[in-house]
Amino acid sequence: MQKNNSFSDCPLEYAISILGGKWKLQIIWTIYTAKSIRFNQLKQELDGITDMMLTKILKEFVTQNIIIRHQYNEIPPHVEYSLSENGLKLVEALSEVRKWSREVQ
Amino acid sequence: MQKNNSFSDCPLEYAISILGGKWKLQIIWTIYTAKSIRFNQLKQELDGITDMMLTKILKEFVTQNIIIRHQYNEIPPHVEYSLSENGLKLVEALSEVRKWSREVQ
Repeated sequence: MQKNNSFSDCPLEYAISILGGKWKLQIIWTIYTAKSIRFNQLKQELDGITDMMLTKILKEFVTQNIIIRHQYNEIPPHVEYSLSENGLKLVEALSEVRKWSREVQ
Repeated sequence: MQKNNSFSDCPLEYAISILGGKWKLQIIWTIYTAKSIRFNQLKQELDGITDMMLTKILKEFVTQNIIIRHQYNEIPPHVEYSLSENGLKLVEALSEVRKWSREVQ
């Protein structure tokens, strides 16, 4: 087996940097279970998050192509968030880690 | 699909708490690639970790049943660390997240 001495390039650290912090996993999970969700609904599900923090994280996730922002030009117009294909793959990958945690906890 | 409002119980947060911090993933990965490794070898592979920090993390991982500490009562006696069955399962689960990161990065 090959030694990996340049661990700083490790893609796992990228994943952990994406998911670290108090809210990010919870946001991904909430959008996943809801399939598609409005900002205010999402905020209600997250106990204590500020508008500013939620806006910031959603923007990051859109940039990272983890979630998609759908704008509905109805009257009144509204916006919903859902996971992108990449985001769904991430949830699948994480579910393996989740399974591991359940078994050992 | 069922809503999960008690996300604080989420096993994934347990996994992230196990793996968070500057060194933990790197230690698991280094032990995994080496299969079995002595303290000093491990320290050499980790650029800049202190003895105290490495000792602390190894103890935690032994308690969490992620690694196994083998004491060899030869002359001179020595100790090696390897992943437990649980630790190997964790690496497998993480490799899914790793694969995801590689694809999207």
